[in-house]
Amino acid sequence: MIKVGIIGATGYTGAELVRILAGHPDVKINVLTSRQYAGVAFNTIYPAMSGMVDQVCEAFDFDKVSEKADVIFIALPHKLSMEYTPGLLQRGKKVIDLSADFRFSDPAKYEAAYQHHTAKELLSRAVYGLSEIFTEDIQKADLIGNPGCYPTSVILPLFPLLKQGLLEVKTIIADAKSGVSGAGRGASLATHFCEVNESFKAYKVGTHRHKPEMDEKLGVAAGKPVDITFVPHLLPITRGMETTIYADLSQKVSHSDIRQCLTTFYSGRGFIRITENQRPPDTLQVRGTNYCDIGFVIEKTGRRIIIMSVIDNLVKGAAGQAIQNMNIMTGLDEARGLKMVPYAL
Amino acid sequence: MIKVGIIGATGYTGAELVRILAGHPDVKINVLTSRQYAGVAFNTIYPAMSGMVDQVCEAFDFDKVSEKADVIFIALPHKLSMEYTPGLLQRGKKVIDLSADFRFSDPAKYEAAYQHHTAKELLSRAVYGLSEIFTEDIQKADLIGNPGCYPTSVILPLFPLLKQGLLEVKTIIADAKSGVSGAGRGASLATHFCEVNESFKAYKVGTHRHKPEMDEKLGVAAGKPVDITFVPHLLPITRGMETTIYADLSQKVSHSDIRQCLTTFYSGRGFIRITENQRPPDTLQVRGTNYCDIGFVIEKTGRRIIIMSVIDNLVKGAAGQAIQNMNIMTGLDEARGLKMVPYAL
Amino acid sequence: MIKVGIIGATGYTGAELVRILAGHPDVKINVLTSRQYAGVAFNTIYPAMSGMVDQVCEAFDFDKVSEKADVIFIALPHKLSMEYTPGLLQRGKKVIDLSADFRFSDPAKYEAAYQHHTAKELLSRAVYGLSEIFTEDIQKADLIGNPGCYPTSVILPLFPLLKQGLLEVKTIIADAKSGVSGAGRGASLATHFCEVNESFKAYKVGTHRHKPEMDEKLGVAAGKPVDITFVPHLLPITRGMETTIYADLSQKVSHSDIRQCLTTFYSGRGFIRITENQRPPDTLQVRGTNYCDIGFVIEKTGRRIIIMSVIDNLVKGAAGQAIQNMNIMTGLDEARGLKMVPYAL
Amino acid sequence: MIKVGIIGATGYTGAELVRILAGHPDVKINVLTSRQYAGVAFNTIYPAMSGMVDQVCEAFDFDKVSEKADVIFIALPHKLSMEYTPGLLQRGKKVIDLSADFRFSDPAKYEAAYQHHTAKELLSRAVYGLSEIFTEDIQKADLIGNPGCYPTSVILPLFPLLKQGLLEVKTIIADAKSGVSGAGRGASLATHFCEVNESFKAYKVGTHRHKPEMDEKLGVAAGKPVDITFVPHLLPITRGMETTIYADLSQKVSHSDIRQCLTTFYSGRGFIRITENQRPPDTLQVRGTNYCDIGFVIEKTGRRIIIMSVIDNLVKGAAGQAIQNMNIMTGLDEARGLKMVPYAL
Repeated sequence: MIKVGIIGATGYTGAELVRILAGHPDVKINVLTSRQYAGVAFNTIYPAMSGMVDQVCEAFDFDKVSEKADVIFIALPHKLSMEYTPGLLQRGKKVIDLSADFRFSDPAKYEAAYQHHTAKELLSRAVYGLSEIFTEDIQKADLIGNPGCYPTSVILPLFPLLKQGLLEVKTIIADAKSGVSGAGRGASLATHFCEVNESFKAYKVGTHRHKPEMDEKLGVAAGKPVDITFVPHLLPITRGMETTIYADLSQKVSHSDIRQCLTTFYSGRGFIRITENQRPPDTLQVRGTNYCDIGFVIEKTGRRIIIMSVIDNLVKGAAGQAIQNMNIMTGLDEARGLKMVPYAL
Repeated sequence: MIKVGIIGATGYTGAELVRILAGHPDVKINVLTSRQYAGVAFNTIYPAMSGMVDQVCEAFDFDKVSEKADVIFIALPHKLSMEYTPGLLQRGKKVIDLSADFRFSDPAKYEAAYQHHTAKELLSRAVYGLSEIFTEDIQKADLIGNPGCYPTSVILPLFPLLKQGLLEVKTIIADAKSGVSGAGRGASLATHFCEVNESFKAYKVGTHRHKPEMDEKLGVAAGKPVDITFVPHLLPITRGMETTIYADLSQKVSHSDIRQCLTTFYSGRGFIRITENQRPPDTLQVRGTNYCDIGFVIEKTGRRIIIMSVIDNLVKGAAGQAIQNMNIMTGLDEARGLKMVPYAL
Repeated sequence: MIKVGIIGATGYTGAELVRILAGHPDVKINVLTSRQYAGVAFNTIYPAMSGMVDQVCEAFDFDKVSEKADVIFIALPHKLSMEYTPGLLQRGKKVIDLSADFRFSDPAKYEAAYQHHTAKELLSRAVYGLSEIFTEDIQKADLIGNPGCYPTSVILPLFPLLKQGLLEVKTIIADAKSGVSGAGRGASLATHFCEVNESFKAYKVGTHRHKPEMDEKLGVAAGKPVDITFVPHLLPITRGMETTIYADLSQKVSHSDIRQCLTTFYSGRGFIRITENQRPPDTLQVRGTNYCDIGFVIEKTGRRIIIMSVIDNLVKGAAGQAIQNMNIMTGLDEARGLKMVPYAL
Repeated sequence: MIKVGIIGATGYTGAELVRILAGHPDVKINVLTSRQYAGVAFNTIYPAMSGMVDQVCEAFDFDKVSEKADVIFIALPHKLSMEYTPGLLQRGKKVIDLSADFRFSDPAKYEAAYQHHTAKELLSRAVYGLSEIFTEDIQKADLIGNPGCYPTSVILPLFPLLKQGLLEVKTIIADAKSGVSGAGRGASLATHFCEVNESFKAYKVGTHRHKPEMDEKLGVAAGKPVDITFVPHLLPITRGMETTIYADLSQKVSHSDIRQCLTTFYSGRGFIRITENQRPPDTLQVRGTNYCDIGFVIEKTGRRIIIMSVIDNLVKGAAGQAIQNMNIMTGLDEARGLKMVPYAL
C-alpha cells in the first residue's frame, strides 16, 4: 500500500483527491492537513464522505507528515506550495504539487505571471505532470508540477499535432469554458450562485495565468516559441471544461491524417478518447472521470481545423491527473483507482 | 462471475444499471436488449461509456437472453415487464424487475393504480426489494419487485418508527422533491430544459401511483391500514430526491430515542446514514451513490417530528438498490460493486 | 412624481427596488445609499442597468436623504433599520422597511427571534405590509414593516381560510422552498454555486425566524394563537419560492367552497391568481413579477387540504410588495409600475 | 393603436412576441394563430400570462388575419413562412417574418442552406431586419426578414469594424454559445433537461445554417466575400447568447480607435451598449431585454482583437428585434415597448 498525505485537504481539489484516493485499491490515506480545520474530522466538513473517510485533519508538520506518508499531494494555493516542497523532498518524499509553483521550466515566466520564486533550484528537477506526454520523466520524478486545468485541455489535443508540424503556430486560438469548481471553495461574489446561474461570460481575457504555462509546453512540441490566444469563460455548471481550439493547417491533411496523428500518439493511453464521426465531445460524458475526450472538424476549404476537448476540471484537470502521475511514479498501471465509469447523465 | 442481462438497457434506469454493473467486480454484463436500438453499440447511444462498455444492444428473445444470463434486470415500463417475467422465471432465471408490476402484494391495489395484471399469480412469489427491510425474503427470492424511488425515500425512514409504534399513522405527510431523471429519457414538454430550469412545482397532487405502493408497505410496519398524504414536486436537478416527512408522535420520545430506533433497526447496513446534530441531509451528498441519508428534528413542543431523507433517485431509488438486491440474492456482500465514494461537490 | 430614496441600495433587495422603481412611471429615484459603495455609480456595481439607472451611491445622511426623498425604502439587515427609521419619521418621511424590525406587533416575539428592539414604541405605529390583507391600514400608514418572503407565501393563501374557520389550526404544516437570492448578496460557502447547484436540502428546521412572524399574523386571522410547523428548503434556482401547505379541514367543504373563499377575499386584487383545474402553480410563471399564484387540492377523503403558493421571493416576497405598498400609501393604483408581463420561459 | 397578429403564437418565439407586445403601449394584439392549439385560450398554454393576455388561438385564415391586423409577425419554421407571406403582402399587410425565409438576398445561398424557395421574387423586396444597421431600409419596408440569433450576435459587433476596414476578413472566427430556448419548444432528446444540465458541447460544427446568413451580411460591410469560421455551442441556461469573436487587425489601432468606431456607428442607438474598461459582457445582464452588450480586448502584441457580444436570444435575437423593427416601420421610437429594465440577477 502506498501511504499518502494530502496537504490542504479541505479545498475542492483536496477533497477530490480524498474522494478518489479513498477508493484507490493500493493507497492508504495516512494524513490530511488543513490550517483552517485542524482537529476536525474530514467528514464533518464533507459529510458526503461519512462512512468512507474517517481521518481527522491536522495542522501541517514536516516531520509528522513525512513519517506517515511517502507520497505527498500538495493542494495549496501557489506560493504556499514552494514553502512546503523543499522540506518534503529533503525528507525523501515524492511530491505532487497541484499549484502552479513547479509547472514552469523557466523561472522568469513563472515570476512574470505569479511572484518571486523562492525555490527556483527545484524547477529543473520538477517534471510537468501531463501524464500522457511526459510519461517517462514522470516515472523517474520525485517532484511533479501538476498541470493547470486549462493547459491540460489545450495541450493534450495540440501536442501531437504541433509535434508533427501540422498547424500554423501563430494562428492558434483556444476558447475555453470552465465549470465553477475551478474557482475553488473560497466564498466570493464571483462564485455566488445568483451571479453564475443563468450567466455566461468571458473573464481575464488576455491575462489568465494559465496562458504562459500553455505557451511554454506547446513550445516544446512546436520546437519554437508559441504565443497563443487564450480566452477563458465561466460556465454555470459545477464540473467540466470544454475548449474549442482553432488553427490554420500548415499543409493539406485529411480527417484521417489528423485522427491517425492523435491515435498513434495516444496509443495505449486509455484516458484519451477520440470521438467518432466528428462528434463534438460533451463535458457531461467525462463528468467525475479522468477522461479527456477530443473531437475535431476540418473546414470544407481545408484551411482551418477546429478541435474540441473536454475534461472534468477537478479530475483530469487536477486531482485525477495527480493520481495518474502517482500511479506512474510508483510503477502502477496509470489507470489504477481511476476507472470510474462515467455517468450516462 | 454472475452473468447478467439488462432488458431495456437504453433508458435512464437501464443505462444506470449498465454504469454500475460495468464496475462491479463479480459481474459480467452478457446481454443488453433494446427494441429501439437493436444492433446498435450501447456506447454510441451513451458515448460516456466508450472504452468501458462495448456490448451491442440486441432485440429481446427469451432463449437468447436466458442462455447468456442468470440474473435478469428488467428496466421496462410497467405492463411490459409482466409480459417478460413469467417466461424468464420458467427458464430458471432470477428476475429483478424495476417497474411497478411486481411491487404490490394486493393485485387489486395494483390494478386500481395501473391496469389489469396479467401475471397475478406471481405477486405472492415476488419480494418487495427494499433491501434493508425485506433482506431475508430477498435472499430467497427469484423475483424482485424493485421499489419505486419515492417509496424508497419514504419507507426507509418511516418503517422502523412505525414498527415501534412511535408515530400517529393518520398524521403522516410526505412532501417529496425529485430530480428530472425520474421522469425517464423520453422527450416531452414536461422535461424540456426550458420548462424545468428555474422552475419548481408540485405535480400529480394526490394522484401519484407511488402512493398506494407506500401505503401497502407502511401498512406492514404499522400493522394496520395506512393512508398517507403524499405530494411530489419536480426539482431542477438531474439526480436526487429529498422527502420531508411530518408526523405527530404517539408518545413522548427524545431525540436519542428516535435515533436509537433508527440506528438499531439499520445496524450493520452501511447504506443508511443517520446525520449528526440534526443536520438536514443534502441530495448532493448522495449523488451517484446508493446511500440513503436520514435526518430528523423533533419540534420543541414534542408533538411533531420532521424527518428528512435523501437518495439518488437513479441509484438507491432504482438501479443501485436493484444491484444491492442482486448481491443479497446471490450471497455477495450487499455493498459489492456499490462503494462509490460520493462527490464532495 | 414621487421622490423616493433607497437605503442599502446595493444588496439584492435594494437592487430589485431600483430595477422596478426605475420603470415606475410616477417615481423618481432621488437618492441611493450604500456604505460600501458610497461615491460609486450604481451601474458600475450592476452593469445590467447601464443606460437605465445613472445615480451615484452616497453615504447615508438623515438630512440629505430627507431633503431629496419623500418615501424611503430601507433595504438593510434587521437591527440597522431600527437605527434609521425614527429619524426619518421625525422628518416627516414615509418609511417602508424591508427588514424584520417593524413586522411584529409584539416586541417580545421580535426580541425572542432577533434581538433587543431599540424603537419598540414604533411597533404599534407600524403596519404589516401584506398588501392585499392590511390594505386599509397601509393606506394610512407612514411606517410599513414589509413582510418576509416566506410569510408572504404562507399567509396569503391561509388568511382567508383561517378567517372563515375552515382549517384545523393545529394541523397546519408549511413546507417551503426558496431560491438562493433570498440569502442575499453576501458571499458565503452556503451560497457558493458548487454547494447549491444539483443540491436540495432543508435548513433551519424549526428555528427559522420567519415562523414567529407567520404565527403572529395567522393568529390575527384565526382569532387565537397559532403555532404552525414550518420547514424551509433551499432550491437551486435564483428567484422563486414555492410553499406547499397541509391542513386538516374543520368541516366538510367542496373544492368550489374553498375557491370561493379565496376569490371573494381577493376580489379585485390582480396580483393574486387562483389556478384553474387544481393545477399546481409554478415558480417559473411568476418569475420577475409581483404575482402570487395559488392552487389547492382537497384529498379524496375530504379530510385534508393541500395548498400550494408561488411567488418571486425578490418581488412579491420583498421589493415588489414594498412598491405595491408605496402605491397604496400614496393613493396610486396598487399595480402601478408593477405590471410586468411574466416570461413564458 | 397598431393592430398586430402573430402567426404561430405558441412556440417560444411566438410566446415571447406575445409577452412583449402585451406590454407595448401602442399595440393591440388582435389575432394569435396556432394549428395545434386552435380554439384554446393562449393563457392555458402559457398560464404565466393569465390576467395579462386573454386571446384565444385560432387557425390561420388569410382573410380573417388580414381583417384583424395590420402588422403580422410570422413565428413559424422556415418553409412555412414563405407559404403565408405572399398572400399577406397582397392584402397590403406589413409582414415581419422571424424564420430564415426572407433573410437572404441571394436565393442560391438560401437554397443551398435550406430548401427550394417558392417566393424568390420577394427576396429583393424583403429587408434584413438588423435594426441598427439597415434602419433606413426598414423604415420603408413592408417585408422584414428578421435576423437569426447567432447572426445578430456576430454581425452587430463586426459590421462597423469591417466597414471601416479594420479587420483581416479571412481571420474571423466566431465561437458562439446559446441558451436552450434557441432550440424551440419542440420536445426532443437534445433539449431534455438531463441531457443539457451540467453539460456543455459544440454542435453543428461547420454546418450551422446561420453561417451563410452571417457571411452574406458581413460581405455587405466588407465589400467583398466573407467566409468566417463559426462554431455554435449549447449552454445550460434558458435564455442568453454569448459570442467571442477573434480577428487579426488589419492596421495598428488603439483601444480607443475601436471604441470610437463602435460608438460612432451606434450613436443614438440605445440598445447597443459598449462595456467600460474592457469588461467582458455577461448574458445575465441582458436577460429578458433587447440589449446587445459588446466588449473587446486588443492583445498586447496589437495583432489580434477579441470581441465579445451578448444578447438574449429570444429578445434581441428574435422577438425583441422584430418589435424594434415594427417600431421603426411604423414611425415609433425604436425602443417603444422595449424598455425593460434588466434584472440585476
